[in-house]
Amino acid sequence: MIRAERLQRTCVPAVDEVLGVPLKVLDDGFVRVVDYMGSDESVVQAARVSYGEGTKKVSEDRGLIRYLLRHQHTTPFEMCEIKLHVRVPMDCWRQWIRHRMSSVNEYSTRYSVAIDAMQKTSPDAWRRQSADNKQGSSGSLDPAPGKRLTEREAEVHRLCREAYEERLKAGVAREQARKDLPLSTYTEAYWKTDLHNLLRFLHLRMAPNAQQEIRSYARLIGHEIVRRWCPLTWEAFLDYRVGGLALSRLEAEIIARIARGEPKAAEGLAEQAGWAKGKKNRERAEFDEKLKTLGLKAPWT
Amino acid sequence: MIRAERLQRTCVPAVDEVLGVPLKVLDDGFVRVVDYMGSDESVVQAARVSYGEGTKKVSEDRGLIRYLLRHQHTTPFEMCEIKLHVRVPMDCWRQWIRHRMSSVNEYSTRYSVAIDAMQKTSPDAWRRQSADNKQGSSGSLDPAPGKRLTEREAEVHRLCREAYEERLKAGVAREQARKDLPLSTYTEAYWKTDLHNLLRFLHLRMAPNAQQEIRSYARLIGHEIVRRWCPLTWEAFLDYRVGGLALSRLEAEIIARIARGEPKAAEGLAEQAGWAKGKKNRERAEFDEKLKTLGLKAPWT
Amino acid sequence: MIRAERLQRTCVPAVDEVLGVPLKVLDDGFVRVVDYMGSDESVVQAARVSYGEGTKKVSEDRGLIRYLLRHQHTTPFEMCEIKLHVRVPMDCWRQWIRHRMSSVNEYSTRYSVAIDAMQKTSPDAWRRQSADNKQGSSGSLDPAPGKRLTEREAEVHRLCREAYEERLKAGVAREQARKDLPLSTYTEAYWKTDLHNLLRFLHLRMAPNAQQEIRSYARLIGHEIVRRWCPLTWEAFLDYRVGGLALSRLEAEIIARIARGEPKAAEGLAEQAGWAKGKKNRERAEFDEKLKTLGLKAPWT
Amino acid sequence: MIRAERLQRTCVPAVDEVLGVPLKVLDDGFVRVVDYMGSDESVVQAARVSYGEGTKKVSEDRGLIRYLLRHQHTTPFEMCEIKLHVRVPMDCWRQWIRHRMSSVNEYSTRYSVAIDAMQKTSPDAWRRQSADNKQGSSGSLDPAPGKRLTEREAEVHRLCREAYEERLKAGVAREQARKDLPLSTYTEAYWKTDLHNLLRFLHLRMAPNAQQEIRSYARLIGHEIVRRWCPLTWEAFLDYRVGGLALSRLEAEIIARIARGEPKAAEGLAEQAGWAKGKKNRERAEFDEKLKTLGLKAPWT
Repeated sequence: MIRAERLQRTCVPAVDEVLGVPLKVLDDGFVRVVDYMGSDESVVQAARVSYGEGTKKVSEDRGLIRYLLRHQHTTPFEMCEIKLHVRVPMDCWRQWIRHRMSSVNEYSTRYSVAIDAMQKTSPDAWRRQSADNKQGSSGSLDPAPGKRLTEREAEVHRLCREAYEERLKAGVAREQARKDLPLSTYTEAYWKTDLHNLLRFLHLRMAPNAQQEIRSYARLIGHEIVRRWCPLTWEAFLDYRVGGLALSRLEAEIIARIARGEPKAAEGLAEQAGWAKGKKNRERAEFDEKLKTLGLKAPWT
Repeated sequence: MIRAERLQRTCVPAVDEVLGVPLKVLDDGFVRVVDYMGSDESVVQAARVSYGEGTKKVSEDRGLIRYLLRHQHTTPFEMCEIKLHVRVPMDCWRQWIRHRMSSVNEYSTRYSVAIDAMQKTSPDAWRRQSADNKQGSSGSLDPAPGKRLTEREAEVHRLCREAYEERLKAGVAREQARKDLPLSTYTEAYWKTDLHNLLRFLHLRMAPNAQQEIRSYARLIGHEIVRRWCPLTWEAFLDYRVGGLALSRLEAEIIARIARGEPKAAEGLAEQAGWAKGKKNRERAEFDEKLKTLGLKAPWT
Repeated sequence: MIRAERLQRTCVPAVDEVLGVPLKVLDDGFVRVVDYMGSDESVVQAARVSYGEGTKKVSEDRGLIRYLLRHQHTTPFEMCEIKLHVRVPMDCWRQWIRHRMSSVNEYSTRYSVAIDAMQKTSPDAWRRQSADNKQGSSGSLDPAPGKRLTEREAEVHRLCREAYEERLKAGVAREQARKDLPLSTYTEAYWKTDLHNLLRFLHLRMAPNAQQEIRSYARLIGHEIVRRWCPLTWEAFLDYRVGGLALSRLEAEIIARIARGEPKAAEGLAEQAGWAKGKKNRERAEFDEKLKTLGLKAPWT
Repeated sequence: MIRAERLQRTCVPAVDEVLGVPLKVLDDGFVRVVDYMGSDESVVQAARVSYGEGTKKVSEDRGLIRYLLRHQHTTPFEMCEIKLHVRVPMDCWRQWIRHRMSSVNEYSTRYSVAIDAMQKTSPDAWRRQSADNKQGSSGSLDPAPGKRLTEREAEVHRLCREAYEERLKAGVAREQARKDLPLSTYTEAYWKTDLHNLLRFLHLRMAPNAQQEIRSYARLIGHEIVRRWCPLTWEAFLDYRVGGLALSRLEAEIIARIARGEPKAAEGLAEQAGWAKGKKNRERAEFDEKLKTLGLKAPWT
């Protein structure tokens, strides 16, 4: 049915070029590709097992990959696998490790002395608490207080490391001595995942509301690694997931009223949904943003 | 930090009412709720652990659940679990079992004699192969050929069961005797999953392009069970996932041109994307559908 | 900390030799390696990330791999991935797909006409129902009844296929026409998993109580593929998992009494546990087997 | 086939008694059961779906559960689910979160101010680095150095918290301000998992070589919660997993020689395996321990 023939492993020269090369992130972090399996072609091959057909022209491959991504046919993307070696502050790693569909081996501070590096903040890199996003930041601190905080940070790092080394010297077990290391301490790990789960990671962690630190890693992995590895998938991902826009049933209905020149009807729908004029409403505020993107005007503004 | 107090288990009377009751599907299938854990409240509780705050008013719960679903903050939905007892033709079960994030114990035809029931097709229930969807159906066969196929189906069922029973009688092991049972043979299983993964199942299997058989199960589970169990989540799911509409970056840009009265610019974008007029293009055809829903007119039609 | 350097992908010539080559199983099935990532070395590398050390001598690699497997440190084995293309009867595939930690793309009989091949049973290959294992088989049928069942099997296959083709001819959708195909119908799939999960699959499916069909696949994958791919892991797997023997706390205590020449005490322990002499008891029967393997004699026999 | 009848949810009074009650761990941690689904009975029910039979007597339930656990038929144990609310130092949480088959919602220090509590070490609780286990501890420090380290710990905690609060006061975003919190800072989370995966967690984390902190949590969850919730499963778990002993093929063969009074043959096998006398060998050292437990004497000692 399906043609069986001798094979060579899929190989992506653009990735081979950077294999093992540490790509720098933050003040002392990096990401290196250690190994990979598959490519855009493997996605296509897996999707085509359904049809009992061999691979076709690149232009059709592109169309197929876009179709799969658009319709969330995600299993073919699982056929590609990548293994990275990363160096990350533990604080950032706490977010990273939440992605369960991956394999991980982390540097052990039970077995070995903790890496002697902590993420440092330069005086101009202290970010202000965002006023309207309780879990975000926006803008940065003035230089004077920034400088003071940076000095204080150095003091904290120094004391924490000293205390750590005193404990080791006194014969305390590494597993216990480490207990007061700051979250900014760097760790290293091998992290392996498949392309489908990597895209989920990137979608979440490249987003503007992701924390800046992990966003730096995610953007690097996306723009420098996935782009080389699976360029067709990467393009489709940018178009549909990153640049895409999702409308709820209600939002689509309101837009239809606006588009047909029935602003009263549009307003009526909004009111029924509890989007009363004047009153603050997060869902309507998000919709206003979408309307702006779509070049449409809300009747209630 | 978080208030700890004595608790009673979350209880949803609307589900308790149907606990254990077989809800019928197809000619001889069913779905029964056997047990569950959590409710809309548990989703809210899990989301609020972030804020160190207790539960608030129902109206805020609704807003929070909608927010979580809209922004794909999926982990709080994992806090609810449900266990179903289902009776399903094996053909349908082959699709069901593809959802890996679940726990399953199936009736064993190695251990016991296979269930003596196969899904039957009435003369008017033979569906035509769809012309434009290679993996779908549309419309149904005429009564005359339908009748003939139904008779033939009975013949197949009879022979398969006879052969199965002959083998058992001759002393053949059940594990081997079953090898030629038709895919329409009913099986039973306990199937347990969490609310997040159940919604993924429903999204995929309630969709118009899902096969009719599994769609019947999915619609029943959604409309009869999830609606009772987690009504706020169910409402949000219908609004955002089932009734929602996703636009790619390009589609949003073209719509903005159309909305601003710049049909030429809109056409230009479409052409750049390879959506040449006249030529058949699946992506553009899908976009035309979306424009219709949004009450907008494509400049190229 | 950890040395970062330019890399080449891990390559295992012994696997490359068979890449794409169909290895035959059953009357019409096969397994082909399509791609892989990693090797024994990658297991070692992942384990060593803990220690901040590079790879050492092969003899130490072997010791480390054995240690990891012995102590169920399973995560380093997840660093190796393999992708197979398999052709399997659906009946067997129903067992295969129960292994959830894997990625799958199966040939679609909604999209394409079902593969025209069903697993056939030769007259001497009908297995008897096991008397003491309700879900197993042992020995085979006499030639005369075997011949009769094989002829009957051909009849079933013929009718099922005819009915299937009649439906297609009458214009019935493929997704429905397939409903009465026998479970013996061959399907094909890409199946990808990691080494840790592959070993779990093999452990379960190579076992003497696994069904013969899937056991044939598992043995082939183990002895022909994993042995080539990760020879040190394979050897350790055979020693600890396949050839290993697990004793419960009670069993260990009874053995200690036997070894110290205290048969009365041994018997006392057995009795306390409800292993009364004479009465049939599955747990004790299994223990008797273990004693035999260990060259020890139960005092109660 | 399987009897379908109206049901009431499974209820375990012994767990209901402690529902919501914080069970104390370490100096300021706790574990609370928030909800659960299923019981020993649900394990049995799931296993019996295979046989198309209803529940039987308790004594048979016990036998069945022991059989399932002994033979690693793990899926029925997945039918039980438990949700805990835990308060844990982040250092310990880093190990906990490695168990991927679970659902988690953690207190967010992006959204809220970090919990103002860090795990403290009393002067007599500093553990020495183990000499023979690179990742363990054994014994404790003398009082004098212990006292000095405890004072120093307080200093570290004070400075870290001050620096944290200064940052907040200066308007720094919570997501960044937290970066130098010590790993000893307490966090809270809802953690939900099924009984099978909970047993894996307990097996690993109750083990003598697990770190003391997480071992305290694991022992509490096991002895105080699982014991109440699923007493038959708990008993079987202690017998087979915790108290069990695994022998490799080689070890079983050597024991057989010893038991048959053939010490030369036993030694020969050991030598072939590279367990040369005199030379240090971890595998043989572990075997010597096993022999001791089994009341047998190695011919090479």
